[in-house]
Amino acid sequence: MVNPSSAPTSDPVPDAGAPPPANAARLAVRRVAIDTWHENVVYLHRDCAVYRAEGFQALSKVEVRANGRLILATVNVVDDTRIVGCEELGLSEDAFVRLGVESGHHASISQAERPRSMDALFRKMNGERLDRDDFRGIVADIAGHRYSKIELTAFVVACNRAELDREEVYYLTEAMVATGRRLDWHEPQVVDKHCIGGIPGNRTSMLVVPIVAAHGLLCPKTSSRAITSPAGTADTMEVLAGVELPFERLREIVREHRGCLAWGGTADLSPADDVLISVERPLSIDSPGQMVASILSKKIAAGSTHLVLDIPIGPTAKVRSMPEAQRLRRLFEYVAHRLHLSLDVVITDGRQPIGNGIGPVLETRDVMRVLQCDPRAPNDLRQKALRLAGRLIECDPDVRGGDGFAIARDILDSGRALARMNAIIDAQGRRGFDPEQPPLGPLVHEVRAPADGVVTGIDNFQIARIARLAGAPKVQGAGVDLACKLGDSVRAGTLLYRVYAGFGADLAFARQACERATGYRLGTAAEVPRVFVEF
Amino acid sequence: MVNPSSAPTSDPVPDAGAPPPANAARLAVRRVAIDTWHENVVYLHRDCAVYRAEGFQALSKVEVRANGRLILATVNVVDDTRIVGCEELGLSEDAFVRLGVESGHHASISQAERPRSMDALFRKMNGERLDRDDFRGIVADIAGHRYSKIELTAFVVACNRAELDREEVYYLTEAMVATGRRLDWHEPQVVDKHCIGGIPGNRTSMLVVPIVAAHGLLCPKTSSRAITSPAGTADTMEVLAGVELPFERLREIVREHRGCLAWGGTADLSPADDVLISVERPLSIDSPGQMVASILSKKIAAGSTHLVLDIPIGPTAKVRSMPEAQRLRRLFEYVAHRLHLSLDVVITDGRQPIGNGIGPVLETRDVMRVLQCDPRAPNDLRQKALRLAGRLIECDPDVRGGDGFAIARDILDSGRALARMNAIIDAQGRRGFDPEQPPLGPLVHEVRAPADGVVTGIDNFQIARIARLAGAPKVQGAGVDLACKLGDSVRAGTLLYRVYAGFGADLAFARQACERATGYRLGTAAEVPRVFVEF
Repeated sequence: MVNPSSAPTSDPVPDAGAPPPANAARLAVRRVAIDTWHENVVYLHRDCAVYRAEGFQALSKVEVRANGRLILATVNVVDDTRIVGCEELGLSEDAFVRLGVESGHHASISQAERPRSMDALFRKMNGERLDRDDFRGIVADIAGHRYSKIELTAFVVACNRAELDREEVYYLTEAMVATGRRLDWHEPQVVDKHCIGGIPGNRTSMLVVPIVAAHGLLCPKTSSRAITSPAGTADTMEVLAGVELPFERLREIVREHRGCLAWGGTADLSPADDVLISVERPLSIDSPGQMVASILSKKIAAGSTHLVLDIPIGPTAKVRSMPEAQRLRRLFEYVAHRLHLSLDVVITDGRQPIGNGIGPVLETRDVMRVLQCDPRAPNDLRQKALRLAGRLIECDPDVRGGDGFAIARDILDSGRALARMNAIIDAQGRRGFDPEQPPLGPLVHEVRAPADGVVTGIDNFQIARIARLAGAPKVQGAGVDLACKLGDSVRAGTLLYRVYAGFGADLAFARQACERATGYRLGTAAEVPRVFVEF
Repeated sequence: MVNPSSAPTSDPVPDAGAPPPANAARLAVRRVAIDTWHENVVYLHRDCAVYRAEGFQALSKVEVRANGRLILATVNVVDDTRIVGCEELGLSEDAFVRLGVESGHHASISQAERPRSMDALFRKMNGERLDRDDFRGIVADIAGHRYSKIELTAFVVACNRAELDREEVYYLTEAMVATGRRLDWHEPQVVDKHCIGGIPGNRTSMLVVPIVAAHGLLCPKTSSRAITSPAGTADTMEVLAGVELPFERLREIVREHRGCLAWGGTADLSPADDVLISVERPLSIDSPGQMVASILSKKIAAGSTHLVLDIPIGPTAKVRSMPEAQRLRRLFEYVAHRLHLSLDVVITDGRQPIGNGIGPVLETRDVMRVLQCDPRAPNDLRQKALRLAGRLIECDPDVRGGDGFAIARDILDSGRALARMNAIIDAQGRRGFDPEQPPLGPLVHEVRAPADGVVTGIDNFQIARIARLAGAPKVQGAGVDLACKLGDSVRAGTLLYRVYAGFGADLAFARQACERATGYRLGTAAEVPRVFVEF
C-alpha cells in the first residue's frame, strides 16, 4: 500500500541519524507507566548527575537519542526513586513507544536546539507573508514534534482569519503532504468523498463507499475518529467491523472489494495535520485556509485523484450563507487544481442533522436500514448518499453526466450495495451487530414538545453536544435519536428525541444540557427555513 | 504590608467555596513526587473507578476540591500502582502544595467547566474590540489558572502587534491589578524605578534604591528573577543578601531603612502577569500593549505612587528609534494617568551593555565598586544610576527641578549610599561577598580582537545569550566581563571580553556561540553610532 518510491520528501526528523552532541549524557532507559497523551515527557531524578550538570529546567525541551532515533521531550523532575532512579532516564508511555528501545538500553539526552523555523513563525506573527520554503520548514518542525504547544498555538492563531492568502494556503497544503507518507494505489483513478463537517448523523460515507465500489470505482476510504463530534466514520464503522487494520491487509481488501472503510490514524498521512488539530480544536479554530490545507493534504496523501466535497449550509452549520460557501468552494478548487486533484464541490442542505440517530450505534442502525431498503430508513440520508455517490460515479469516463444518480439508485435498490458492504465487513472482521436490536445505552431521557407547533429549527451544535455529553462516541450505544425533523407538526407532549447513555453521570450531564436548551425551536409552518441549496 | 481592606476585587477562584457538583467523586489524596513546574497534574490509575465512570480524557482539565479550596489540573493516566493506586488521587508537587491538604485526606474531582471568558477570547481572536468586563473576565480566569497553555497563547497572540487600542490596554492593566493583592505602605509617596529591559548589565536599581532611600524617599523595591536575561535584580542582590523574605520582615526593613531590594515573586502582585509571561517569553512577544500592562500592573499592585521608567534606545535594544520610543512613552503615560500613577519616562542610551560585568557576581562587583567610589567602577553605570536617582529625588516636593542629580551625586560620593546599602544588606541577611575576590566561575574563555580597529557595535542580544549559555544566572559566578566598550581602539589580539563558567558543558555552549558571532563589530571611529538620546 505504501509505495517505497514515494518516501517522505521532507524527513520529519532530519538529524535523527546524526551523532548526538559531544556533550550529550547517557542514561539507562526506564519505562514510566504514565500516559501523557500526545506529549513526550522525560522523568529525571533531581539528584541525577546529568540533570544537575546540564541544568535542564523543568519544562525545557530535550532531545533523547537511541539506536539512531531521536525524540523531543519535556522534562519533569522527580524526587522518588520508585518512579525513576538517579542513573535512569524515565520515559512516559508515548515517549517510550516513539523511541522504540528496550528498558535498560542506553540513550543520550541533550538540550534541544530551537526549531529552525522559529524565525519564519515570528515573521508570520508579525503579519508577513511566508513563502514556500518557510511553510516547508514550519510544517517539517511541526510534524517532527519540535514545536511546543505554545509555538503551535502561535502558528495557528497567526494563520487564523484571513491571514493566509490563497498562495500561502497552497504552500501550506503542499508542505503538509510532503511531510508524511503518500500512498500509491497504482490505478489511474482513486475516488473519495469528504464533508467539511458540523452536521450530526451525516454518515454518508458508509453508503457511498459500497455503492461506488460496487460500480467498480476504487474507493479506499480512510476516516478519522470523532474529535469534537459525537461520532466519526471510523467510530461508526467500528460497530460493524474492525477498522484498525495493518496496511498489507487493507491493500488486499481494497484489491478484492474495490473499497474499504478503515481508520486512517496509523497511516502517517499529513502528520502535521494531526498535530495542528490538537490545538485548533480546543480553540474552535476552523478558518478557511486551515480547513482547506487539512482536508486536501489528507486526501492527496491518501492517494486520491478525484474528490467529491460536501459543504453543508445552514443556520447552525459551519457555513451559514451561500456567498460564504462560494468563497470556500473557490479556495478549495484553487488549491486542489494546483495540486492536481480533480475536485467536485457539492453544496448541501445543512439546516438540521441528517438521518435520525446520532452516535455510533444509532448511526449504524440508520445506515444499515438504508442499505437494506428498510421502510424505516431515513430518506434524507438515502437521498444525500445517492446524490454524492452519483457525482462520484460520473468520474467514470463511461458514465454520461447526469446519469450518476440513477446508477447509484439501481445499485442500492438492487441490494448490490448491501452485498458489497457485507463483503467489506467480513473482510475487515465482522462484529456481531443486529440492526433489529441495536445495543443502545440502557439509560434513557426523553425530550418532548412543550407546546403545539411546527419544528422550525434544530440546532446542529446543541444536538451534537447533548450526544457527546451522553457518552458518544466513547460509549458506542450512547447518543440522540431524533423523532421529529424540520417541518414536522407536533402537539404538546410529542416526543422530539430520546437520549441514550451508558452511565448515570453522563445522562445527568446530557439532561442538564437539554434543560438549558433542547436544540429544538417550534413555530409556524411559514417559519421553517427554506433550503437555499443547489446541487 | 498587605492591607486587608485592599482585598482582591475579583476573586481568582470565585467558586472555590461552592460545593462540588453532585456528581463529583471522592478519592484519597496522594503526593506524587514529580515536579511539573507551573502546571498542576493529577495522576489517576487507569483502573480507577472514577476515571472509568467519568470518562476523563488524558489532558482534559479537572477540578479538584478539598477543604473549600479548588485547583484546576490536567489528568495523566497511570498504569503503575507504585505511583498511584486505584482508590487514590495523585497530585504533582505543585498541585499538592496549591491544594494544601495532607496525604490521605479526601478530595473530590470533577470535570472542569469551560472558563467563562472563552467567548470573549474567541471575539478577540476574531479581531473584535473588548470592553472592561471582557478583560476582567479573561484576566480573572488567567490568574485562576483556568486557561490551558493553548488558550493563554491564543490570547497573547490575538493581542499582539497593534491589536489592542490604548483603552483596551488600560482595561487590561486595570484588570491585572484588580486580580491580585495590592500593597498599601500607608505613606503618601512611594517611589520606584523600572527599566523595560533588554540591556545586559543594567543594574541601576541596586544603586538607585540606596541613594533615594538615603535621601528619605520610601522605595520598597521588589524585583523579578531573570526569565530570559543573564541576571535579574533579584538574582544579583542574592549574591549579597537574602531576597526571599516574609512580608512582615520586609515591612519592618522598609520602615527602618526606607528601602529594600527583595524578590517580588511571593507577593501575589498581578498574578495574571506571571502566567502570561510564561507564554510570552518563549514567543519573544513584547508588544507595546502587553509591556505596558505587565509593568504598570505590577508597580500599581506594589503600591507605587511615583515611577521613573527607563526606555533604552539602540540598534540591538528593545526600542530601536526615537519615534518608536515616543509612541511607547505616550502609551505608558496614558495608562499610568488613567490609573493615577505619577510617571516620569527617561529615554536612555541602549547602544551597548551598561557596566562591564554581565551575570550575578560580575554585576554585583560593578555595583559595589560604584557604591565604594572605586576608580575601577564603570562610569556609565554610575552616571545612569545618578540620573535616574536624581529624577526620583525630584519627586520630593522640597527639591527644585534640576537639583536631583547633584543631590544624588552627593549622597553617593559621601558614602551615605554605601552605608544605606550595607544596612539593607544586613537587614535582609548578609551573605559573604568580597568585592576584591568575587567568586567567579573557574572556567574561562577569552575573546580577542581579530584585527586593529575601533569598537563600533556591541550586540546586547548576543552578549546576553553568551552569558546565559555560560550558566548565568543559575551559576552565580558565570557570565561575561567586557574589557572594551563602544569607541575603544583595539589592536589585533586585544582582549574584548572574558567568559566565565562553572561547568564544562556550559563553557562549550558559550564558546560555540562566541565562534558563531562574538557580538562585537570593529570599524573606524566615524562608524560608532551616535547617542540620539535626550534626558
